[in-house]
Amino acid sequence: MFSKLKTDKIHEECGIFGGYLKDKDIAATLKCGLLKLQHRGQDSAGISCGFDVQNVYKNLGLVNTALRDNELRKLKGSFGIAHVRYSTCGDVKEENIQPVKTTYFGEDVSLVHNGNVKQAEKIREEFEKNGEVFLSTSDSEVILKKIVSSLKKPPSKWTFEEIGECLLKYFSLGSYCILIYTPNRVFAFRDNFGYRPLMLAKSKEGFFVASEDIAFCSLSEPEIVEIKAGFGVEITKEDCQIKSFSSNKASRQCVFEHIYFANPASNIFSKNVYTTRIKLGELLAKSEENDFRADVVIPVMDSGFACALGYAQASKIPFHVGLVRNPWLERSFIQSQQELRKNNVRQKFAPIKEVILNKKVVLLDDSLVRGTTSREIVSMLKRAGAKEVHMRSSSPKIINTCFFGVDIPTKEELIAYNKTDFEIAKEIGADSIKFLPFESLSEVFEGDMWCNQCFLDEVQK
Amino acid sequence: MFSKLKTDKIHEECGIFGGYLKDKDIAATLKCGLLKLQHRGQDSAGISCGFDVQNVYKNLGLVNTALRDNELRKLKGSFGIAHVRYSTCGDVKEENIQPVKTTYFGEDVSLVHNGNVKQAEKIREEFEKNGEVFLSTSDSEVILKKIVSSLKKPPSKWTFEEIGECLLKYFSLGSYCILIYTPNRVFAFRDNFGYRPLMLAKSKEGFFVASEDIAFCSLSEPEIVEIKAGFGVEITKEDCQIKSFSSNKASRQCVFEHIYFANPASNIFSKNVYTTRIKLGELLAKSEENDFRADVVIPVMDSGFACALGYAQASKIPFHVGLVRNPWLERSFIQSQQELRKNNVRQKFAPIKEVILNKKVVLLDDSLVRGTTSREIVSMLKRAGAKEVHMRSSSPKIINTCFFGVDIPTKEELIAYNKTDFEIAKEIGADSIKFLPFESLSEVFEGDMWCNQCFLDEVQK
Amino acid sequence: MFSKLKTDKIHEECGIFGGYLKDKDIAATLKCGLLKLQHRGQDSAGISCGFDVQNVYKNLGLVNTALRDNELRKLKGSFGIAHVRYSTCGDVKEENIQPVKTTYFGEDVSLVHNGNVKQAEKIREEFEKNGEVFLSTSDSEVILKKIVSSLKKPPSKWTFEEIGECLLKYFSLGSYCILIYTPNRVFAFRDNFGYRPLMLAKSKEGFFVASEDIAFCSLSEPEIVEIKAGFGVEITKEDCQIKSFSSNKASRQCVFEHIYFANPASNIFSKNVYTTRIKLGELLAKSEENDFRADVVIPVMDSGFACALGYAQASKIPFHVGLVRNPWLERSFIQSQQELRKNNVRQKFAPIKEVILNKKVVLLDDSLVRGTTSREIVSMLKRAGAKEVHMRSSSPKIINTCFFGVDIPTKEELIAYNKTDFEIAKEIGADSIKFLPFESLSEVFEGDMWCNQCFLDEVQK
Amino acid sequence: MFSKLKTDKIHEECGIFGGYLKDKDIAATLKCGLLKLQHRGQDSAGISCGFDVQNVYKNLGLVNTALRDNELRKLKGSFGIAHVRYSTCGDVKEENIQPVKTTYFGEDVSLVHNGNVKQAEKIREEFEKNGEVFLSTSDSEVILKKIVSSLKKPPSKWTFEEIGECLLKYFSLGSYCILIYTPNRVFAFRDNFGYRPLMLAKSKEGFFVASEDIAFCSLSEPEIVEIKAGFGVEITKEDCQIKSFSSNKASRQCVFEHIYFANPASNIFSKNVYTTRIKLGELLAKSEENDFRADVVIPVMDSGFACALGYAQASKIPFHVGLVRNPWLERSFIQSQQELRKNNVRQKFAPIKEVILNKKVVLLDDSLVRGTTSREIVSMLKRAGAKEVHMRSSSPKIINTCFFGVDIPTKEELIAYNKTDFEIAKEIGADSIKFLPFESLSEVFEGDMWCNQCFLDEVQK
Repeated sequence: MFSKLKTDKIHEECGIFGGYLKDKDIAATLKCGLLKLQHRGQDSAGISCGFDVQNVYKNLGLVNTALRDNELRKLKGSFGIAHVRYSTCGDVKEENIQPVKTTYFGEDVSLVHNGNVKQAEKIREEFEKNGEVFLSTSDSEVILKKIVSSLKKPPSKWTFEEIGECLLKYFSLGSYCILIYTPNRVFAFRDNFGYRPLMLAKSKEGFFVASEDIAFCSLSEPEIVEIKAGFGVEITKEDCQIKSFSSNKASRQCVFEHIYFANPASNIFSKNVYTTRIKLGELLAKSEENDFRADVVIPVMDSGFACALGYAQASKIPFHVGLVRNPWLERSFIQSQQELRKNNVRQKFAPIKEVILNKKVVLLDDSLVRGTTSREIVSMLKRAGAKEVHMRSSSPKIINTCFFGVDIPTKEELIAYNKTDFEIAKEIGADSIKFLPFESLSEVFEGDMWCNQCFLDEVQK
Repeated sequence: MFSKLKTDKIHEECGIFGGYLKDKDIAATLKCGLLKLQHRGQDSAGISCGFDVQNVYKNLGLVNTALRDNELRKLKGSFGIAHVRYSTCGDVKEENIQPVKTTYFGEDVSLVHNGNVKQAEKIREEFEKNGEVFLSTSDSEVILKKIVSSLKKPPSKWTFEEIGECLLKYFSLGSYCILIYTPNRVFAFRDNFGYRPLMLAKSKEGFFVASEDIAFCSLSEPEIVEIKAGFGVEITKEDCQIKSFSSNKASRQCVFEHIYFANPASNIFSKNVYTTRIKLGELLAKSEENDFRADVVIPVMDSGFACALGYAQASKIPFHVGLVRNPWLERSFIQSQQELRKNNVRQKFAPIKEVILNKKVVLLDDSLVRGTTSREIVSMLKRAGAKEVHMRSSSPKIINTCFFGVDIPTKEELIAYNKTDFEIAKEIGADSIKFLPFESLSEVFEGDMWCNQCFLDEVQK
Repeated sequence: MFSKLKTDKIHEECGIFGGYLKDKDIAATLKCGLLKLQHRGQDSAGISCGFDVQNVYKNLGLVNTALRDNELRKLKGSFGIAHVRYSTCGDVKEENIQPVKTTYFGEDVSLVHNGNVKQAEKIREEFEKNGEVFLSTSDSEVILKKIVSSLKKPPSKWTFEEIGECLLKYFSLGSYCILIYTPNRVFAFRDNFGYRPLMLAKSKEGFFVASEDIAFCSLSEPEIVEIKAGFGVEITKEDCQIKSFSSNKASRQCVFEHIYFANPASNIFSKNVYTTRIKLGELLAKSEENDFRADVVIPVMDSGFACALGYAQASKIPFHVGLVRNPWLERSFIQSQQELRKNNVRQKFAPIKEVILNKKVVLLDDSLVRGTTSREIVSMLKRAGAKEVHMRSSSPKIINTCFFGVDIPTKEELIAYNKTDFEIAKEIGADSIKFLPFESLSEVFEGDMWCNQCFLDEVQK
Repeated sequence: MFSKLKTDKIHEECGIFGGYLKDKDIAATLKCGLLKLQHRGQDSAGISCGFDVQNVYKNLGLVNTALRDNELRKLKGSFGIAHVRYSTCGDVKEENIQPVKTTYFGEDVSLVHNGNVKQAEKIREEFEKNGEVFLSTSDSEVILKKIVSSLKKPPSKWTFEEIGECLLKYFSLGSYCILIYTPNRVFAFRDNFGYRPLMLAKSKEGFFVASEDIAFCSLSEPEIVEIKAGFGVEITKEDCQIKSFSSNKASRQCVFEHIYFANPASNIFSKNVYTTRIKLGELLAKSEENDFRADVVIPVMDSGFACALGYAQASKIPFHVGLVRNPWLERSFIQSQQELRKNNVRQKFAPIKEVILNKKVVLLDDSLVRGTTSREIVSMLKRAGAKEVHMRSSSPKIINTCFFGVDIPTKEELIAYNKTDFEIAKEIGADSIKFLPFESLSEVFEGDMWCNQCFLDEVQK
């Protein structure tokens, strides 16, 4: 459950994992970490591992398809970084699979990143004007090139400070996390504003960094801390060291990591994701009119599950799975995914008539983006005999696109943009629709540490 | 959700789908049907389709891996049968993938079956004594051979009655469903006792048979009926015809189809599976001591979900997902599955501490077979801070192996065999354990139409 | 050089190899033997090896593609049989790849054969009338079935005599060689008339049988003998034993094995193939008119090479390679072969102008079947500037189809059938044409041991 | 025949093909050209084709394996360049497969090259010092980078002159040919000294460039010219234009292209390769002592074939193929090639005893490098019964390594370095050895246009 792959959903980009595994080859551990972060990207997977010399193994497809165990067994070395990729339509190209690796002054260096490296396009253009070429369209190559051209010395000579300051100087506005693997060292950096999560674990097995702490759940008694915005980590054989590279006090943690993107078992931005979603559902229930009554609360699986449960428990309306999702449909490898884009809701979901027939249904999803899926699901419920369908969204209306790494379409494509609730409900065929009031968000995401720009018509400065 | 692939769980064998698609090539429809029945078998998939001439396309792996869309597009013809296979350990061989096809007197005939063809082994031996050879170890070859050697004429000359009587005569004791595809006709037969479900759908698109009606959910307004025990169906271009081949009045529908195996959205044996599971959970809750109280009900995902919800609703104890299952781990293709057998619970499940910490937890699963998974999950919950863990099973104690197609190990391997509740709880590390009282079963599975032999120490005659 | 794959050439079917390798796993040796027999079949390759238990590994494609070294390493056992297949158009199906294997009374038995099993079709029909089915269209299944249904006991109980007599009784008219592998024994049988070659080698490495002795050339000092017509061999761990199963005195060794099919380095039917071809070329030269003069003798590569050299040496006309063949074109794997059927001579051959320009050319090929290739090559030579092109064939006119395993088309398709030399020359655009006089054949293939029926309008009785 | 893949042979690097195909998609034509140049490289193959937008399709393996027809069909566009690669041991990496492509100022540009780009390593180091990174170890990336960094404008704005002058300026000492594909134009450049051949063809089908003219042999009546040393070609939709970029008068055409590397049917450096080899054999025969007599001349197939024939014809000693080479062994795809490195001569060649037994044999090869193969072949002939084996090389002694693209090992590994004929003969077990006298070379390679440095102990200035 809780998997992601919806066509008309917002998406964030990629998951990263890396570190040092004491006295063992890290390749299998990297794969294991990526499997736990697979929900952050299903298009390709790759690792770079070794000691001094680095081997890259990467392919299109899901982790299990892309990284075959019999190949992993051949890869030696205790240091490594790894990546799963969600790619926006059209750039599922082999040349863009991460990690990107180069050999510079005879030494290997690899890099992976997730998120949105704001200045990358501009820096790429500057490089081009200067006569430099790129072999991929990935921002990873831009970041790596910028570091190399700034430091101009063998990777083994790069210091933690130099790399951190270089990133701060050139990529200060991005919303990203970056892992860099130089001979016998792994570095991790979180952007200045902390849009994306980055976690560190120390355990007797070694030192590890990951997009979400769920990636650490096979470690024995790990000590887990969150790398703060503007901070970096240096991992060596002996130790791991955390350092701040920014005087920035503000941070803008992405609320959508909690609402939709992260694994419910993860704890990021100092909160458990599942619990957050339950609470959002409860707040949504509390925002209902006093006299609103319904027969059953049904989640849009899997992303609407936790908020629906929270809503049901707060409203005392019975909770049921009224739509069974076919788990096999979306988890084949990449070629098939392309074909599945065309598969409609009728293929993905099967209604349970007994749960729906003649019922006044509250249908819960975590958010509405384009509204396409919602319209089809409402229609499916009506065909299955629902008396009424009341759509509910555990996030406020999304009325602005995202500039920080979440794949939200243009305003015009957003179903909630410039429409009243009544208009939206009509468009999706529901008997009513409600969104979580924007004000309620602050009961969950307290303080001023959060980025909620997609709910605002104007961009924050 | 609701997927199946547990190592120490009982398994039933295979899913089947077939029929006639008016005016179109059926290959894509066969794949689509198999995708909906994938939970019944993940080891291999295959189809046979055409009109007179039949093409077989089959491979190891999940449906999406085994049956590639670009190959399917080449396969012409409106008639066809299809199969997904669950194979007991060791016989994942290419030669055993269904359908099995032969050309007899110059005409093609294909066959698929699920379940347990009781007399197959004996008939195979008789054939061998008579000097006949088999190229596979699949029972499908035995059934096909027996029909051929009985009818001794071209498949297009076989009548509905002849095939049905032949199956009745030689395979009367089995627990199976069989699809046979002869030139421009598809036949379906359900065994005498009706152990396994078999559904028929008529719609404007054509005539179809399937193990479960969920396979029909992409059809437009299908008219769905259950093929009764001992009945068969003949599908031609013009019509489909149902006929009885047995005077047997008794039937023994497998309760485990409802408890564990079938898709919750399916309606088989005249019942909805999800609703049945909810009710089993409610009955289990009612069987608790009056003073039993707990803080949270947690399902073992995915099979324990519905009964846990029913239990929670009946007992008024809050329901929560306390263990998130990694949906990516188990759904790669076949080679990886082999490797995953070794993966332990720690890889499959991630606990949500906020839900568990200092709580008295009721842990719900649909059944306990070997108990291995249960032991590891209880231990995981305790490590995550659960104060107490009370294991509950929505089925009675399994104390007998299954002779009718469910993959239950020998009595000695069953954790509940010859043990008290106290002993079982101790073995899995739980603070208590309860099973659904055997008597409660009859409140759900009313009448004498059911096979519940696995809960009885003696075999029914 | 000397490879075969021409579209309009006659073809014989398949190569076989098998035996016992002392104290080692035989799988790699089987592959090595098949590589040496690859010229006898390029469509698929397969092996069966083990001791008691037999493992079959087979695939479409060339040996190196079909049998991967990393898979072979997993296959244990010292006994084995192997097969490369040439399949007549249309039956390149997976189900027809040899070896065919069955498990009978719990014991494994495998079989491969080459050539033409005359009575197979009739026996197949009898089986069918009797109600037995076949899973492939391969004659191997028929032979295996016939042996099994005759002997009706476990393969380990079959005696050398029983198998030999069974083959003699039911398949007396065929032109084939058969290898049968039962637990810890390998049998080889050559048909009554000895159409196809079968060689036996004893060396310190073990005992081996093969279609041609070139397959033994990696053995150290092998003692090689030819298995005579109607004889069989039994190979066990201890020894190999030869036995006669036929009182037939006549034999009909296929002259085309020497003219075209076998490897020039092979010694079959008590003759070296290369030397035979040289002699055929010499005889052809001697049959020329006294005053015939030309500037250069050019072979159609590779099959016309040796006879062209013999012709040149006897006629004192300079020998040159005037057409270079592209060795890469035809040796990809099976899918591409299909596509290459369309590739014309212009793709396959490149003329060397310096050799041809303004020359009176004698163009030598081993035989003319349909004449398509000859026509295109003559035209290519003329375009490259040849003054005259005189076509010569080192075999007599082929005017009859073959009933014994060589893939010769119907009489009507044969270019030489019912045509004068003048008509044939005109059809292919040559300035003249000559075939080896039929009488000259007997100077090479002395005695009455030979099948030369394809050069005769009437079939021998 | 005439294929190349010997382990201890000298090798030159790569074959290139490209151009413009009028009104059709060029992809299939590119593959067809590469098939004809396959002898120049078997490790990988790749193409880039399109109009403005360029698609790269490249893979490890032989052309037929690397470039599948069903993929080629999808590639649109009339312009393109293509490459087959021979890689020195160890760098068979995916990242080094050509073409290399980049997108610069939003426009695509691709490049392939063969030969040895002398200054590449130094330029790479300069780039690195300057802080620029490389994603491959291929010189193609260096050349492309150098052009881009010199011209600093969109590829469509690059002029023929600018590119040519840039190459002249930075890569004046190399021995290479380069193809560059910018939007709707293809450029070809041959190095200053003309070490490697480069041919141009105009035909009604379009304009094409290739390493050897054999690649044009499917064109209808092509007009073929050799691009001279220091010249370039620009191909557009309308026309092709040749231009000189160098005032260099000297040229140093590699004699080994004729002796060993090129296809015998090719005409390069204004000579036919086959005829040259025949003449080398004749000169070698003439250099023999007057009283030298032998029974048979045998070539080391395939590279020794033509010189052996020339030798035999001049010396009146009979010519025969005494060693049949297995054509199937070496032409599988890349993984297997690795494994075949270990296969010894006994697997590759089969002796024909009838030709050898009790004979005084002259064994002809085109050259001796390390001498490993020669030693094993001499030994094989002796075991097969040769009375004497006299080794002859149609090239002079190789006593110097090559700095211009031919894969010759270090002096110390060369069998002829610092050894007398007697010592060499002894080392390979031959009864005598002779090399073509260095002086005789000038009878074939007249004038001062040739590079023969590998036969000289000192490097030419």
